[in-house]
Amino acid sequence: MKKVTSLIIFLMLVAQFNYAQDGWRNIFNGKNLDGWKQLNGTAKYSVSDNMLIGETVLNSPNSFLCTNESFADFILEMEFKVDDKLNSGVQIRSESLPEYQNGRVHGYQVEIDPSERAWTGGIYDEARRLWLYSLERNEKGRKAFFKGQWNNVRIEAIGFSIRTWVNGIPCSNIIDDMTPKGFIGLQVHSIGSNKDLEGIKVMWKNIRIVTSGLSKYKTPDKNAILQFSYIPNSLTDREKKDGWKLLWDGKTTSGWRGAKLDKFPEGGWEIKDGILSVLESSGAESANGGDIVTVEKYANFELEADFRITDGANSGIKYFVDTELNKGAGSAIGCEFQILDDAKHPDAKLGVKGNRTLGSLYDLIPPVNTRFNGIGLWNRARIVVKGDHVEHWMNNQKVVEYERGTQMWRALVAYSKYKDWPNFGEAKEGHILFQDHGNAVSFKSIKIRKL
Amino acid sequence: MKKVTSLIIFLMLVAQFNYAQDGWRNIFNGKNLDGWKQLNGTAKYSVSDNMLIGETVLNSPNSFLCTNESFADFILEMEFKVDDKLNSGVQIRSESLPEYQNGRVHGYQVEIDPSERAWTGGIYDEARRLWLYSLERNEKGRKAFFKGQWNNVRIEAIGFSIRTWVNGIPCSNIIDDMTPKGFIGLQVHSIGSNKDLEGIKVMWKNIRIVTSGLSKYKTPDKNAILQFSYIPNSLTDREKKDGWKLLWDGKTTSGWRGAKLDKFPEGGWEIKDGILSVLESSGAESANGGDIVTVEKYANFELEADFRITDGANSGIKYFVDTELNKGAGSAIGCEFQILDDAKHPDAKLGVKGNRTLGSLYDLIPPVNTRFNGIGLWNRARIVVKGDHVEHWMNNQKVVEYERGTQMWRALVAYSKYKDWPNFGEAKEGHILFQDHGNAVSFKSIKIRKL
Repeated sequence: MKKVTSLIIFLMLVAQFNYAQDGWRNIFNGKNLDGWKQLNGTAKYSVSDNMLIGETVLNSPNSFLCTNESFADFILEMEFKVDDKLNSGVQIRSESLPEYQNGRVHGYQVEIDPSERAWTGGIYDEARRLWLYSLERNEKGRKAFFKGQWNNVRIEAIGFSIRTWVNGIPCSNIIDDMTPKGFIGLQVHSIGSNKDLEGIKVMWKNIRIVTSGLSKYKTPDKNAILQFSYIPNSLTDREKKDGWKLLWDGKTTSGWRGAKLDKFPEGGWEIKDGILSVLESSGAESANGGDIVTVEKYANFELEADFRITDGANSGIKYFVDTELNKGAGSAIGCEFQILDDAKHPDAKLGVKGNRTLGSLYDLIPPVNTRFNGIGLWNRARIVVKGDHVEHWMNNQKVVEYERGTQMWRALVAYSKYKDWPNFGEAKEGHILFQDHGNAVSFKSIKIRKL
Repeated sequence: MKKVTSLIIFLMLVAQFNYAQDGWRNIFNGKNLDGWKQLNGTAKYSVSDNMLIGETVLNSPNSFLCTNESFADFILEMEFKVDDKLNSGVQIRSESLPEYQNGRVHGYQVEIDPSERAWTGGIYDEARRLWLYSLERNEKGRKAFFKGQWNNVRIEAIGFSIRTWVNGIPCSNIIDDMTPKGFIGLQVHSIGSNKDLEGIKVMWKNIRIVTSGLSKYKTPDKNAILQFSYIPNSLTDREKKDGWKLLWDGKTTSGWRGAKLDKFPEGGWEIKDGILSVLESSGAESANGGDIVTVEKYANFELEADFRITDGANSGIKYFVDTELNKGAGSAIGCEFQILDDAKHPDAKLGVKGNRTLGSLYDLIPPVNTRFNGIGLWNRARIVVKGDHVEHWMNNQKVVEYERGTQMWRALVAYSKYKDWPNFGEAKEGHILFQDHGNAVSFKSIKIRKL
């Protein structure tokens, strides 16, 4: 505890020192809420002892105390302290527009999350794309925040890059081009009608920003944590350096063919505005344009693809696909990352214990910890293959993990619909397949790197 | 190759040196077969250049060239060389009796096995209990034998202990009290009617023995390899030192109770001559005496039990058993090492892909590499639990291996008859159960050690 306190004091001294330098200025004056406006919810915001205090009220949506000023590129720091039971966050480059959900505040939120999940410092795209950077894959980041104490947060938003630190520990790193500027906002989360949470508080102080000469203040990026890019169909410098390739160029059918064809299907698929879509047909498996596969085969790899589904849709991403098997009707044979509208497609209730739901290894392994962004929103699928070890990830949550080729694998396959395919799922390499199941489903940002 | 040759020469020199000492004598004179008699098969045995040569003939059972003399405690050495395609062996303490299978040679055979399996130096109980010491768990031993070359074998049979070395590498170590003495015999294995194997050879030379003052010649036992005991319901000194306990004392019901009772069942089970038997009833599950369980619970353990089944029988050994589950009809709930007459019991064909056959993890994982000794013979079951890692072994072959608690485990259970038992197979500890399935099945030498 003492160590922690010392760290905080040190960080605050550093902050004071920074403040003394040119360029830094306070955007909260410590006395009143001049320069801020409250949007959406009715939480109580007040000022006391140089602290800006937010307090929950019953039956309010999320509340935001937002700067009147708009900020594009900046480095922002502040200290915050939050009740153990309250979720909060700091909006940056955010907007409230009459034409967007009737003025609902939306945009990048640097998370304040004292729950067991411990995603403080993560980046949530409020009222828009949802989680951009959870701390699921940043264990050190998850330990950066201290409950019941003052914590320091630093946010560097420069160009397409947004990075965060909590108490000096790097937490998030995204590359995104969606909104270049907007207000800064302090969230008090809705508590619904839960009286136990009424009147609990989040506090901020020393809210300071620098907006010019940023190269002088910017923290060098030493790749300490993962970087997630949301720029469609393109690779960041770091991704290129790490060996990522675009598996789809965003424009043409190059590198792809029909699973049962020598070329790309004549119909059933559409490429438009950087999005690859299965067109709606009958809802039958591989009956319209048919599945498409990579021309190349892959053995050990990390694959990412963003997908978006429509109401009741069914699709999937298969790997270890052998297009020489199943020359008959239906989809080509391989392991499938299932894509499904679990709420409306009947297949979600078939199979056993959810082993045909979104993110599952189809008909074999039910997913765990799924976090679906919803119909019409983009979700990120990730498949990792290292020898016999395979993982499915969705929106940065690991949802399926297995060891193929084991006795347990074979015993499991023996129970499934794949039981009659010899050595199912044990191919050393195979094509990657996107499934046409006759429902409108879209893909973009399809990337791969060999491991 | 050169290294190997040097080793052989060295070993032969050592042998010559030993021979020069008191006590060693040749039992093959290098000139003719005086002192030997041929039993059972019609293979050709001849002498040439100090070598005793065995040669296959068509349509003969196994042939044995046996000493007229009987040997009890001894150390025996010889060199041998064998055709790559021929199985052979050296019988010790063996017998041919009119009352036993019409004079069929039976007893301990030190294996000569140039096949890929590479069990040369193992101990096979010819025409009796079959494998006593395969080299499945002795990887170094499997590499001791060199194809196409002269190899040295050393056998120390002293009291209940029989140990073997091939080219100086320890291969087998058993403790057994079945036959204290008998002849030495050189096997030429049957080749049936396979003409490709006609006329292939095995050769022996320098067959020498010492029978007195053995303490002077005996190799100290440094526990370099595993020791397997076949003395019923007892522990060797080494087993005691390694932490083994008898789970059944061989005489009483102490430490056991009915799975659904506070005491041992009144009927349905029999203890006689060191054998614990389920009595034949209707063939129904837990309907007569009912299953029995250990009073104690076990978490991490190594369990061994010898079992013997009758025609068409069904039984099993369960672990992680919670006797509080399933208070109704049928067997208590836990993971089951299936015991079944696969040939005659219908359950072998049920389930999927053999996951209800002998050695399987019942209804979940089919066994691999099973080696069943047969109806009426003893088989040794072994179950190893280390945390979530579990193995089934039968007759020293690993037949099932799995990691419980994994996503794949749960996905597999979801398909099985256990799908409705919450967290099936994931208990930290549980009773060990022997199943009454209404068929005559016997157990002995039930041992456990905590890991």
